[in-house]
Amino acid sequence: MSLLEISSFAAGRWVAPGAGARNIASAITGKVIASAGNDALDVQAMLDYARTVGGANLRKLTFHDRARMLKALAGHLNKHKQALYDLSFDTGATQSDHMIDIDGGIGTMFVFASKGRREMPDGHVYLDGDVEQLSRNGTFLGQHICTPLRGVAVHINAFNFPVWGMLEKLAPTLLAGVPAIVKPATNSCYVTELAVKLMLDSGILPEGALQLVSGGLGDMLDHLTMQDVVSFTGSAQTALKLRANPVILENSVRFVAEQDSLNASILGPDAQPGTPEFDLFVKEVSREMTTKAGQKCTAIRRIIAPQAQVDAVIEALSARLSKTTIGDPRLETTRMGALVSNGQKRDVLEKAAIIGREAERVFGNPDSFTVDGADADKGAFVPPMLFHCAEPDKAQRVHDTEAFGPVSTIMGYRDLDHAIDLANRGQGSLVASVITHDPAVARKVAIGAGAYHGRLYFNNRDSMKESTGHGSPLPHMVHGGPGRAGGGEELGGVRGVKHYMQRTAIQGSPDILSAIGEKWVPGGTEVKGPAHPFTRKFGELAIGETLLTAPRTVTLEDIETFAHFTGDTFYAHMDDAAAKRNPFFPGRVAHGYLLLSFAAGMFVQPDEGPVLANTGLDNLRFMKPISAGESIKVRLTVKKKTPRNEEYGEVRWHVTLTNQDDEIAAEYELLTMNAF
Amino acid sequence: MSLLEISSFAAGRWVAPGAGARNIASAITGKVIASAGNDALDVQAMLDYARTVGGANLRKLTFHDRARMLKALAGHLNKHKQALYDLSFDTGATQSDHMIDIDGGIGTMFVFASKGRREMPDGHVYLDGDVEQLSRNGTFLGQHICTPLRGVAVHINAFNFPVWGMLEKLAPTLLAGVPAIVKPATNSCYVTELAVKLMLDSGILPEGALQLVSGGLGDMLDHLTMQDVVSFTGSAQTALKLRANPVILENSVRFVAEQDSLNASILGPDAQPGTPEFDLFVKEVSREMTTKAGQKCTAIRRIIAPQAQVDAVIEALSARLSKTTIGDPRLETTRMGALVSNGQKRDVLEKAAIIGREAERVFGNPDSFTVDGADADKGAFVPPMLFHCAEPDKAQRVHDTEAFGPVSTIMGYRDLDHAIDLANRGQGSLVASVITHDPAVARKVAIGAGAYHGRLYFNNRDSMKESTGHGSPLPHMVHGGPGRAGGGEELGGVRGVKHYMQRTAIQGSPDILSAIGEKWVPGGTEVKGPAHPFTRKFGELAIGETLLTAPRTVTLEDIETFAHFTGDTFYAHMDDAAAKRNPFFPGRVAHGYLLLSFAAGMFVQPDEGPVLANTGLDNLRFMKPISAGESIKVRLTVKKKTPRNEEYGEVRWHVTLTNQDDEIAAEYELLTMNAF
Repeated sequence: MSLLEISSFAAGRWVAPGAGARNIASAITGKVIASAGNDALDVQAMLDYARTVGGANLRKLTFHDRARMLKALAGHLNKHKQALYDLSFDTGATQSDHMIDIDGGIGTMFVFASKGRREMPDGHVYLDGDVEQLSRNGTFLGQHICTPLRGVAVHINAFNFPVWGMLEKLAPTLLAGVPAIVKPATNSCYVTELAVKLMLDSGILPEGALQLVSGGLGDMLDHLTMQDVVSFTGSAQTALKLRANPVILENSVRFVAEQDSLNASILGPDAQPGTPEFDLFVKEVSREMTTKAGQKCTAIRRIIAPQAQVDAVIEALSARLSKTTIGDPRLETTRMGALVSNGQKRDVLEKAAIIGREAERVFGNPDSFTVDGADADKGAFVPPMLFHCAEPDKAQRVHDTEAFGPVSTIMGYRDLDHAIDLANRGQGSLVASVITHDPAVARKVAIGAGAYHGRLYFNNRDSMKESTGHGSPLPHMVHGGPGRAGGGEELGGVRGVKHYMQRTAIQGSPDILSAIGEKWVPGGTEVKGPAHPFTRKFGELAIGETLLTAPRTVTLEDIETFAHFTGDTFYAHMDDAAAKRNPFFPGRVAHGYLLLSFAAGMFVQPDEGPVLANTGLDNLRFMKPISAGESIKVRLTVKKKTPRNEEYGEVRWHVTLTNQDDEIAAEYELLTMNAF
Repeated sequence: MSLLEISSFAAGRWVAPGAGARNIASAITGKVIASAGNDALDVQAMLDYARTVGGANLRKLTFHDRARMLKALAGHLNKHKQALYDLSFDTGATQSDHMIDIDGGIGTMFVFASKGRREMPDGHVYLDGDVEQLSRNGTFLGQHICTPLRGVAVHINAFNFPVWGMLEKLAPTLLAGVPAIVKPATNSCYVTELAVKLMLDSGILPEGALQLVSGGLGDMLDHLTMQDVVSFTGSAQTALKLRANPVILENSVRFVAEQDSLNASILGPDAQPGTPEFDLFVKEVSREMTTKAGQKCTAIRRIIAPQAQVDAVIEALSARLSKTTIGDPRLETTRMGALVSNGQKRDVLEKAAIIGREAERVFGNPDSFTVDGADADKGAFVPPMLFHCAEPDKAQRVHDTEAFGPVSTIMGYRDLDHAIDLANRGQGSLVASVITHDPAVARKVAIGAGAYHGRLYFNNRDSMKESTGHGSPLPHMVHGGPGRAGGGEELGGVRGVKHYMQRTAIQGSPDILSAIGEKWVPGGTEVKGPAHPFTRKFGELAIGETLLTAPRTVTLEDIETFAHFTGDTFYAHMDDAAAKRNPFFPGRVAHGYLLLSFAAGMFVQPDEGPVLANTGLDNLRFMKPISAGESIKVRLTVKKKTPRNEEYGEVRWHVTLTNQDDEIAAEYELLTMNAF
């Protein structure tokens, strides 16, 4: 294999590493396989290119356009993932590890593509929350919106997941409409470079949306403005240095940090040996210790078990860990590969020694272990190591020292409060897990430990078949944590997209809010269309287009008929005296469902036409009962239109039922699918 | 008036200022009226007291309990507001200014009390967003929750709103369940001290929930942990110093900053002289310049008008400003009082001189103006000053220099894009306003300027009667802004409460999620109650309690009957051939409303009992159509219970309609009011 020269992609062109390039060694053999560096990069030109070309191109697209772009990108990477697998072995990762990094990264992109289509509008303004009533008569209202930042996202990623680490940040950034400059950790940047090449070569991305820095960032951070975002994953030490950058502080540049933390897993008091939960616990802990050779920011560093079960856990875990074949990750029999570099190996051994001052090593010996198919002295191999801390209350290092490898410490707890205290001693983590079948235990931990952890993962016999693992951040759920974990958040569906948008409070009249949000707001102008709205195609309907029906009187006979037809003989409809005793009714009143059904009869246009189906109904509230002899009329207004596929889209209608005195009897939103 | 000694309230007792106390002068007379200082404070004891006593006491309460507490506090302050008014004149504020500060602060507390009851649960865990489907069979799900931080909120407030400034931070903090230490600016801390005394003396707050630092904070910030929050309002310079604190950076302590900014107001291109918008613009700008003598972080510092209208605006604005009577704020005729101190007066005049280098003063002369009832040389009086910047593209100081007084600069724009550029030149503001009657103008500004402003305020003839003013942060809407405005957010309803809570991603089985959220999750255990759930009182119903009905067959006659009874003869129900052409239906199908109505007939218990009314329905989705001859059955499960008053509460039921093959035909949430 010839030496790979890892380039940067800057301001529209690939730039080869210069004279000062740094060598990168294979994690397995220790031999140099690549070099990366960038002494020729013009960081200001990169920033300008992103902000002007990339940002403008991305902002032309709607959220749905960008979601489709993500889907295409993910599909493209999926087709070429074998090339990424092939290159990744030299980072020390096994095929199972690749699945987490490469398939996991692609899957994350697919989820954002899907959420972008389902949970965001086909427009340029995202509405955050509901309309706020700021005035008595409704002529002045509030609405929060999110729009893309006008700057660039600088992504500084860790070495352990060269693909997922990039894509989990890139997907929400691009969906928001913001261009990115990706700076992977140098140790594994050759894998990231290939993924970036694949994406750029696909032609799916607009110009300027994505740039790559292989090697150092130079003084890029000193050129950031209030419209930029730095999103960092890595060590607490580096994060602290970056977040103290004077330009970042002075310009209130958004800085999202996700730092390694001392994640814990608690064996529930109910999960005694012999229960499915005990076995599950041993399996999850063992897997978290050895996946990616423990180089996961979410790996379990502290194992918290009932005092009485500590010996049983050590025994079961040791038995399982002893089956972890270590070796060249290309071998099918290998269960655990190497750390990313010999530098990391030295660091892990140093940290393990620190932990060893407060805890006894009960499994694994770094001076004596077997490596299959590789030279243990040249590659960055270490064995899984389990420590036992007998006095966790007095200890400090086991709660604050992270050996970023297959190293974990078990400690016993007296009762659940003690377990919670120990978990919280980490001073902020990305994830803590609890293996319990007792919902009361789960609730107690959620309330007692929630403030210290970005994610709480519960597993037991009910969920174990479908559970996704303590260590797996999912695109749907926030990833990040308070304190030592960096105080940031990533992912979490649309929450993660908002990190790259500005939330703005909008105040104004209903018409102003309707125009900004492309969603009709009650009180806004109602437009009479040229024909019944049910005869008009999706594309023809205007926001605010309104149908107002003639009134229909509700008779006592209607109520009786409906009651006996449906079987709904609830006393409020049938028994005048009983209804009068009820705090809500003046006497017998019409069924709510009778009103809904009559309303449909009043607004429906029965002939075959563009309306394909009534698919649902939201936010129905009955405001004022209708007695026999009163009448209702219906107002039906186009509130929001969302394309769903090539043939039809969803129309959300605002429906108001009023009585003969124009008082609102009921209000709801109706959903129909309408042909284009 | 004897000298007021302004005390601190620390760890449960009042502490008088020590020997190093600082004198505070009246804004009107320049005479010393009070002294404040605290050389005897033990900051660590204060933090411990808040964290242990205050936090524990507050966390025992539910969100509803704390909302009721806020309502009681607001009511108590409301009763004693005259005392606060009386004391506030010496800060230079008029009675109108007091209304903003004191009534505005109390009103903010009332809104949070109301939102806490309406939008948060009567429990200890706030659910953020919906359940996330993480597995195919639904045995492993996700849900985000928020729980109170376990630390203390340190509130550092500005001098301009000694009451509102405290209450707008305190209301969301206490509602979250977090204790606060309030540090007002020394210049006006005597008003804050009285408000704190009133609240503490009311006996409404639990012990430890509220402490006060009059004078400096000492080294309190050096003792903060990852569970604490600093919420700061004031100058960019002070914010920068605080946010660079090594302890804050290292522990990822949450730091929310709200800094003064160069807020702009744009006169829309449509708002020519003679329109209601032109007059409205002049009125709003004039009011924003003179309220609180311009000492508002949201005041309009830059007036952006169409080039052709600049002269007309200057003329109209000057005419209006010339009617601003300046004087002792106790006089009823006074329209504008004094700045808070002579120090502030010097600062404003210095900044005005800087602006004067790029802009010409066209109204107001600080060397020649009339002051009623006070000595202009002793009090901190300045006149309103209007500058005109002829070349705003070349200027810099008018976009970055804030004179924190009645000072504003008008500049002309060529077209709307230019106006947006000028507004964004402020590099981040709390609020920008646009006076326009054209929704297209509003939309363009929202998209073009949204990323630079925390709030965009639109006003015109439709909303002007009920609008709340460019400069008024409302508790419903976020207050804060990017960049120069500090990059923080406060208020915004529940959003503001979340700043004092940790969001945690929860993953687990439906039963685990149901227990943590006290809300039944589909897939969770269904419990059969001892009787029909409609016969059981609010308090008796258990989360998960389920009724499963017998099936009912839907006949073609039912469909025909329903169609002719309601008038809903939509082709999908009446015309088999047309229905078959539709992508959603196999042929003629039952009306969705027929299914809903039959379902009600199947699950209802008709007799008078604890169910008082069906008040609404949410998230109805029709999943699979029902043809004639098929049957439906209904499953009704108690999902969530929320007390509404002393007599009844809302029960949210999860309803599933399944066909004869147990496929889901429809799913929704039903709301009823049930007696206790």
